[in-house]
Amino acid sequence: MIDVILNHKSIRKYKDEPVNQSLLNKILLAATRASTTGNMQVYSIIVTTDKKVKEQLWEAHFKQNMVLQAPVILTFCADFNRFNKWCRLREAEPGYDNFLSFFTAAIDALLAAQNAALAAEAFGLGICYLGTTTYNADQISVILNLPSDVVPVTTLVAGYPDENPFLTDRLPLEGVIHYERYKDYTPADIDKIYAEKDSSELTKKLLKENNLKTLAQIFTQKRYTKKDNELFSEKLLKVIQKQGFKF
Amino acid sequence: MIDVILNHKSIRKYKDEPVNQSLLNKILLAATRASTTGNMQVYSIIVTTDKKVKEQLWEAHFKQNMVLQAPVILTFCADFNRFNKWCRLREAEPGYDNFLSFFTAAIDALLAAQNAALAAEAFGLGICYLGTTTYNADQISVILNLPSDVVPVTTLVAGYPDENPFLTDRLPLEGVIHYERYKDYTPADIDKIYAEKDSSELTKKLLKENNLKTLAQIFTQKRYTKKDNELFSEKLLKVIQKQGFKF
Repeated sequence: MIDVILNHKSIRKYKDEPVNQSLLNKILLAATRASTTGNMQVYSIIVTTDKKVKEQLWEAHFKQNMVLQAPVILTFCADFNRFNKWCRLREAEPGYDNFLSFFTAAIDALLAAQNAALAAEAFGLGICYLGTTTYNADQISVILNLPSDVVPVTTLVAGYPDENPFLTDRLPLEGVIHYERYKDYTPADIDKIYAEKDSSELTKKLLKENNLKTLAQIFTQKRYTKKDNELFSEKLLKVIQKQGFKF
Repeated sequence: MIDVILNHKSIRKYKDEPVNQSLLNKILLAATRASTTGNMQVYSIIVTTDKKVKEQLWEAHFKQNMVLQAPVILTFCADFNRFNKWCRLREAEPGYDNFLSFFTAAIDALLAAQNAALAAEAFGLGICYLGTTTYNADQISVILNLPSDVVPVTTLVAGYPDENPFLTDRLPLEGVIHYERYKDYTPADIDKIYAEKDSSELTKKLLKENNLKTLAQIFTQKRYTKKDNELFSEKLLKVIQKQGFKF
């Protein structure tokens, strides 16, 4: 268990080999054993293996190759639709059309996703999360026919790995852990926490390629720019509200 | 690995036995191996073991006994503070004061939390998530001295179990999984999916105790009422914005 967790690597190249239904069921069952608020299970998982639907999702995920290549795409959605329908059929009036309920359902969906990711890895598959899910949640909702009260929050691609990348670096534990209360960072703390990342060979290579001075500039000017973040932020807020969560 | 996942039970009673630092470090390390957007690790984990701080958190978590009883409380926070500070010290201007960035950081925090939960269980500890984190995130932010750009999104209590509850029920797999696209539920689907839950012995007991007709009414009238949801929704939106994520 711990080995699976410690050896997680995102896989971006997959073999042309399907995942059989029995294995997929084990992974999906593992997903549903995650903790869920009040045991409401306010999430849904959409399994996509069909080439045509995958092509549409590929467009929504900025044409990342692995979306076409991986045999299985799992879209995890915050879902109050099923629960609300149940309430209405049981003489109960649901009050879950608000931001808290959306966020509760998103938590449910994300814990289920991480169970699925680890289960897949335990069975020898590789996985990768697609952060693009929140950028183009509106487009994905249309592709997957999501009804009201359902919003996609993350996606996993899964399949048999066709690469074996190195373990990626992480900040030292003391960089992300606080004891008792939050201890804010001094500039010296930041220097220490980011020392390895700032000066790694990978960083040097990236700086040369991008003709920039610091790794942080690669994040702010190339990967996650203010302009993009604000655009996708607006889109995400709109789709959450359009799907029925009012705020 | 799979066994740990399949046997997860939320533990609400704990032995009076501390978790040693070496074991805690293993759990925290496992948390940091979870996938994270762009390897930014935009989360922080606050470890609380001090009795006085625990008492304050206990108040914020609606005085649930396990918050005092469990030796370790882990508060998982969406955190762009550290990353923004790093950017500013590296001649990069961060553009992460928006809803998308908050949500990205929340995803990071939640995947790390589920890794911590499973690692703890793999080592023989019990855990329970506290959904009350999002209800009283404002109060928790004050208790834990959270600076701008940091918002608590979930909490785990952990320790040696002093109970061995039954595995809780889950909806049948076909109730939460969709193939290719979302297939909306007919009333007959809902009846089938919820059949076991609607008629279980536990449900019968709850209906008698609450003098209500359906389990759904227990959710809408007792556990998660529209009024409470709307109140906590407003509070949560306010604290996210107060902490610096504008929308």
